[in-house]
Amino acid sequence: MKTLARSLAVSAPSTLPVTGFDRRIAALLALRFGNAAVGVALWNGEMFCANGAAVESSLRIADRATLVKLLTRPSFEFGDCYARGLVEVDGDLVATLTALFVHAWTRPSPWSGLATLRDRLTLRSKRTARSNARHHYDLGNDFYRLWLDQRMLYSCAYFPTPDTSLEDAQSAKIDLVCRKLGLRAGQSVVELGSGWGALALHMASRYGVKVRAFNVSQEQVAWSREHARRAEIDGRVEFVADDYRNARGRYDAVVSVGMLEAVGPGNYRSFGAHIARLLDPAGRALVHTIGRHRPLPTNAWIRRRIFPGGYAPSLGEMSAIFEPNDLAILDIENLRLHYALTLQHWLGRFRAERSAVARQKGEDFARTWELYLAASQASFASGWSHLYQVVCTRAANNAIAWTRVSGGV
Amino acid sequence: MKTLARSLAVSAPSTLPVTGFDRRIAALLALRFGNAAVGVALWNGEMFCANGAAVESSLRIADRATLVKLLTRPSFEFGDCYARGLVEVDGDLVATLTALFVHAWTRPSPWSGLATLRDRLTLRSKRTARSNARHHYDLGNDFYRLWLDQRMLYSCAYFPTPDTSLEDAQSAKIDLVCRKLGLRAGQSVVELGSGWGALALHMASRYGVKVRAFNVSQEQVAWSREHARRAEIDGRVEFVADDYRNARGRYDAVVSVGMLEAVGPGNYRSFGAHIARLLDPAGRALVHTIGRHRPLPTNAWIRRRIFPGGYAPSLGEMSAIFEPNDLAILDIENLRLHYALTLQHWLGRFRAERSAVARQKGEDFARTWELYLAASQASFASGWSHLYQVVCTRAANNAIAWTRVSGGV
Repeated sequence: MKTLARSLAVSAPSTLPVTGFDRRIAALLALRFGNAAVGVALWNGEMFCANGAAVESSLRIADRATLVKLLTRPSFEFGDCYARGLVEVDGDLVATLTALFVHAWTRPSPWSGLATLRDRLTLRSKRTARSNARHHYDLGNDFYRLWLDQRMLYSCAYFPTPDTSLEDAQSAKIDLVCRKLGLRAGQSVVELGSGWGALALHMASRYGVKVRAFNVSQEQVAWSREHARRAEIDGRVEFVADDYRNARGRYDAVVSVGMLEAVGPGNYRSFGAHIARLLDPAGRALVHTIGRHRPLPTNAWIRRRIFPGGYAPSLGEMSAIFEPNDLAILDIENLRLHYALTLQHWLGRFRAERSAVARQKGEDFARTWELYLAASQASFASGWSHLYQVVCTRAANNAIAWTRVSGGV
Repeated sequence: MKTLARSLAVSAPSTLPVTGFDRRIAALLALRFGNAAVGVALWNGEMFCANGAAVESSLRIADRATLVKLLTRPSFEFGDCYARGLVEVDGDLVATLTALFVHAWTRPSPWSGLATLRDRLTLRSKRTARSNARHHYDLGNDFYRLWLDQRMLYSCAYFPTPDTSLEDAQSAKIDLVCRKLGLRAGQSVVELGSGWGALALHMASRYGVKVRAFNVSQEQVAWSREHARRAEIDGRVEFVADDYRNARGRYDAVVSVGMLEAVGPGNYRSFGAHIARLLDPAGRALVHTIGRHRPLPTNAWIRRRIFPGGYAPSLGEMSAIFEPNDLAILDIENLRLHYALTLQHWLGRFRAERSAVARQKGEDFARTWELYLAASQASFASGWSHLYQVVCTRAANNAIAWTRVSGGV
């Protein structure tokens, strides 16, 4: 985490009296919540609510400065004020955020077009890509281990039914990806952004394919190599500690799960050109990514505190990957509710280990990550975020599956 | 058919001697075919071929004027010259066209960007839409009856296996659409562009839903109503002889199969707004359309002789339907090879009835339609055209299917 000074204590509420000014600001803030049954509670306990209905939860504001910040720059300040304990949520955190998302408190401002433009124009050097990835992924295996599944899959799972366990749902996701790619023994696969290696290891051990997996995070590559050795498949899967743009050669399949979010729209065309270069004329590629239903800027707080350089594209924006590179889309599936459920699992595990996180990394860090996971769940649950799996091939490739599955929808 | 004068006899080859000029033009033309094993044969029998390999088929050119036209404006003149018998294909017509498409003889010229722009800027009044549709669909039920399936489905079929019959594949297509929409008895459906009514009739009779179907072709609406009466479901399905833009109300499902091709990219945003207005907050919409893997102008000959106002969009262009209207895409399937096979069936049936068509409508008409069907098959087979089924819903709608089909890809 870059900027939250560790010395900043999580704060206590103000002891100053509430003034008429404070009440006006609180009322304006409550108005922003629209029809969400969410109130604004001041440090003296006074409650403000725009909508007539019963308040189901409220934001408890610690002091005047916080109140003003929330009114003027909510999409950034909510996160930082929450991390410092200057905002508390009385009520269920996920439900409150979902209500706020649904009722569009955080709907993009008139300036959001500029923010989207900035996201689009940002070209990422390999150096920036490495530093961005490290900011997020080099927080330490021990941290992610606390709340991810055993194989450390840090992307949307696929739940055949909603009561599938997280471990099984992550296995099902990996299998879904492999089946969409139509993998057959003896084929070659290149993975762009391989996380802790679970997909690459699974493809090599279960599908008998040969895998080269690229990842800029040293710590993840070390972990992945260790697991390949233990599984005695290090002859079939090679983890390369390098930028995906340095991948060379031709492969039967190209796969990228949860990396496009770090690529940035300014690089989509060259990302697609790279896929096209790596792809055998009869091969298939799959891109799995968080997306939007329309272009929206990355939340300022997430961008600053969690994912520097992160951007989730709309399918229209993603067409820049495929169309200029003569890649034809065969199949798109939106797994939005699967990601909401994945995040619910992660958040539950995180909360079970919350005191360990706070001890290791500080209370503000624990609050930041709890909010990040809860807000992500709310974002998928409310339709602000989506999860796209896109399968593509060269436009003229006729070596494609005839149907998805016999007669299936 | 608008312009091919019926008096124009299908022509005989020139009796003039072949000159050095003719040979140079023929050689240039052959060069354009790239690596396709297709030759250029002049009226005296001389053959030109750019590529060293054996020629598998050839274009036999009747005279000098045709030769020059093919060099200067191939994408339009090939069709018209073929219709008049000024070009003959010695060899399999579909295979020859596929080879030419694959080897990019008709790759868009530097001016194609302008043509695409024109396609994009064209706004269609309801009057133009009606006249365009009539040009194509009011050729007469008797004509389409000769070569379509019994229920007159004039859009891509879905073949569970490649040897499924056309009739069964059209039934399977209709069922695929209904299952993707998740239809349940008692629901309401609006269909935008209903052809000869087979989908509407099937939904009403097999799925127990109530359907309103819009179509500007009087002849098709009359046919559809007659079939609804005969099936005694005219209480559950209403065919409205009107522009889809005049549809009102709220429906559980909105479906449009094979109409977007006539909407025009300039109207996509309002087409999507119309879908969003008609769609219940928990409803689903499906758009089934011919598309491209990247923006490409409509072939000039198709545009003039077959489909005035026709345009097949890329998925990136189609995002203008969904993104500005807060519609989220749930599912996209590309059925390209299914359309190639559908067209193979249509062409086979058409050829079996070719002499009847020529008697009814003239030899030039028969040649025009044979070429149109063959070129369409070649276009899907070579990856120049695609077929997209897109399922969407309001972005925040959580009443969506959990998985496509248990564990299916």
